[in-house]
Amino acid sequence: MAQRPSIPKGTRDFGPQIMVKRNFIFETIRNVFKRYGYQPIETPAMENLTTLLGKYGDEGDKLLFRILNSGDFLSGIDTNAADFQSGNIASSISEKGLRYDLTVPFARFVVQYRNDISFPFKRYQIQPVWRADRPQKGRYREFYQCDADVVGSNSLLNEAELVQIVDDVFGQLKIQTVVKINNRKILAGIASYIGSPDSLTDITIAIDKLDKIGIENVNRELEERGISAKSIQLLQPILFMTGNSREKINALEGLIGTTEIGAKGLEEVKTLFDYLDSMNLNLSYELDLTLARGLNYYTGAIFEVKALNVSIGSVCGGGRYDDLTGIFGLPDVSGVGISFGADRIYDVMSELNLFPEKTSESTFALFVNFGKEEEKYCLPYLRTLRQAGINSEIFPEADKMKKQLRYADQKNIPVVILAGEEEVKNKQFTVKWMQSGEQQTIQAEKLVELLTH
Amino acid sequence: MAQRPSIPKGTRDFGPQIMVKRNFIFETIRNVFKRYGYQPIETPAMENLTTLLGKYGDEGDKLLFRILNSGDFLSGIDTNAADFQSGNIASSISEKGLRYDLTVPFARFVVQYRNDISFPFKRYQIQPVWRADRPQKGRYREFYQCDADVVGSNSLLNEAELVQIVDDVFGQLKIQTVVKINNRKILAGIASYIGSPDSLTDITIAIDKLDKIGIENVNRELEERGISAKSIQLLQPILFMTGNSREKINALEGLIGTTEIGAKGLEEVKTLFDYLDSMNLNLSYELDLTLARGLNYYTGAIFEVKALNVSIGSVCGGGRYDDLTGIFGLPDVSGVGISFGADRIYDVMSELNLFPEKTSESTFALFVNFGKEEEKYCLPYLRTLRQAGINSEIFPEADKMKKQLRYADQKNIPVVILAGEEEVKNKQFTVKWMQSGEQQTIQAEKLVELLTH
Repeated sequence: MAQRPSIPKGTRDFGPQIMVKRNFIFETIRNVFKRYGYQPIETPAMENLTTLLGKYGDEGDKLLFRILNSGDFLSGIDTNAADFQSGNIASSISEKGLRYDLTVPFARFVVQYRNDISFPFKRYQIQPVWRADRPQKGRYREFYQCDADVVGSNSLLNEAELVQIVDDVFGQLKIQTVVKINNRKILAGIASYIGSPDSLTDITIAIDKLDKIGIENVNRELEERGISAKSIQLLQPILFMTGNSREKINALEGLIGTTEIGAKGLEEVKTLFDYLDSMNLNLSYELDLTLARGLNYYTGAIFEVKALNVSIGSVCGGGRYDDLTGIFGLPDVSGVGISFGADRIYDVMSELNLFPEKTSESTFALFVNFGKEEEKYCLPYLRTLRQAGINSEIFPEADKMKKQLRYADQKNIPVVILAGEEEVKNKQFTVKWMQSGEQQTIQAEKLVELLTH
Repeated sequence: MAQRPSIPKGTRDFGPQIMVKRNFIFETIRNVFKRYGYQPIETPAMENLTTLLGKYGDEGDKLLFRILNSGDFLSGIDTNAADFQSGNIASSISEKGLRYDLTVPFARFVVQYRNDISFPFKRYQIQPVWRADRPQKGRYREFYQCDADVVGSNSLLNEAELVQIVDDVFGQLKIQTVVKINNRKILAGIASYIGSPDSLTDITIAIDKLDKIGIENVNRELEERGISAKSIQLLQPILFMTGNSREKINALEGLIGTTEIGAKGLEEVKTLFDYLDSMNLNLSYELDLTLARGLNYYTGAIFEVKALNVSIGSVCGGGRYDDLTGIFGLPDVSGVGISFGADRIYDVMSELNLFPEKTSESTFALFVNFGKEEEKYCLPYLRTLRQAGINSEIFPEADKMKKQLRYADQKNIPVVILAGEEEVKNKQFTVKWMQSGEQQTIQAEKLVELLTH
């Protein structure tokens, strides 16, 4: 009869202590989003597979959680058909999947409600997503994304404000970060400049390894990937580029500035850096030509935010996409957005011990229960405390004093209120401050005043 | 290429206007839960099917959304086996399901972490649940539950406090309600008293129809369900019972008070009413012997909260369960809880027009964008407003004035801030109050003061 309870691998339960910390992160992000005029939306956990499939590459399709059609899902399906027998039955018995990210459902949302939305549309969305990834440290099958996107505006001020949001969020969370910035048009410009416009992906993958494997190995890899010797040679000054972001931009102008797309990318990055330089940000930001980011819907700016002083890398990322709503039938609506990874941020804050000690989520005062008469005496005061906005409770039964105090202790309740026979007779309370152990006996009508000041 | 986007039937998107209202409901409920010392937990959307199956009756099992095993889910499964061919393949290709409610996952949670939890454990949980129900008005396949439960305490003070929570929540939402209260032990006592202890369900179903079909039809139905003439006769004084809750309790004592379980139930209800009568509640509450509630894990008190003056009935329900953790291997941990139906509450508030007009979630001030120079002038003040806690934004490009004002209008932004050439020259802003149409020109450094007072 008794089952040993467990949860699916890669998923997690969150108890009260963890929830309080997670909510601190969510609240911080949410408040910043709101401060910048972003409005909340929510979409269903399930989307039609037609909405999800083909948006995240072949690998992404495999990682979708699919939901069995309900009812008699085999009805009308020929289980003897070759397609079924070959094991390729998923598509015939499953029409829905769990969302894989928040960006594609958002694009679907924008297209579906385009007539009700006033553009530019600034929305934020904080919801879980699901991926059938192999679970490992820091990688889960259910995790939250916190996204802010604006669609229907080409202005680079949006990009700059997103970096400002990053600055505000991590400033409030006290996490030191650097924002790596690149632009897909610059990457395309590089590929075009060296005469391999179709090898953009190969080139960025190789560049990305520069720090790890060194220039010689990078060049060998480029060669293996079929990049011509001439192209590799033209790439060398770009790989060896030094200096700060402005110096790199200047140097690039002399190289890829001659390609149309490269020139456009450089112009965009310059405008963005002009904005950022005027904004007095606390975080640092830099052009990073090795930043490519996997999602292939990006067309302009790309961001990645790295936390400093920790092993965990990226805590936030994003970019501009010009054509995401196009796949759902609404072309020419450019968007740009960022996504905060709440779970990564949680891990960083744990590692650096950055969570605030106190939060308002816990109980502040516990009435000890000495028995029916004393309980009756306490209940109206308990109500008064709650009406005064103080989170408080009474132990529900007259259990051993030791057990009740241990409960207060384990729940980190700072104030315990006692009313035994004596206090009831004198209309008093004895208030015990758990941390110091101090206690004082006061007249009952002074209780609220004492606890609110 | 272009797909016509849609979402699965029975699911919903929530745009900004609806989200603000929904969040108002969630925040109200959450704050009351916290005020009473309940702590948040969250559990995964997916549970193992072994956790879910068999907990909600046969009907519930059918309504579970099942998730296809990921990867090559047919590997190792004999598709020629009779079990597979007969269509009964769900169990071999699906091991996980979406949670159906929050109570069973909570019971699983309590058992799984019993060594880390200090009892009594007061938790709240606000998360979506999924049921493959036939979609219809007011019934969805994805909807939120807002649950508060306390486990590990038998005290009836818990029941009383849950009614107090109901009073606080609906008081704050300005919904008039009545709490119907019954006790499973009283129902068992009635069944025992009339000599049909095993017909409890038949009897309560029949009683439930009294208002609709009248006493003669109820008696005929009881007869059809195999209840003896003698039992039906003994039931009559209970069906015809009049008076207020206390009078009914007194009358019942003369009848079912002779049965052990009935006496226990009456004692519980009396204690609960004693608590409630001392609590000065705003809502009304009454003993309702016709209240049975479907979920068969209830063993003591049962509640149902009905909104007055609307067609929609139940907005909240709950009860005590003595054995829910027992099925996961932890017996003798009694619990009691309530569940608020956020979607029902939303519908009631819409129907009665109870949502507050203003909320803090929207943008308060919009800077009109007149061009690059003016934008540059505005940006530092925009930052100052945000730092002062004012949700504000700038239109991201120098679009037509008309378009920018329409944007403010559609987003319900109350204040529009203008800085054209003249204002920039004189270090001023013109502030336009959208509702009245009034506008005033002020020195730039007075902006924050004007908008915060």
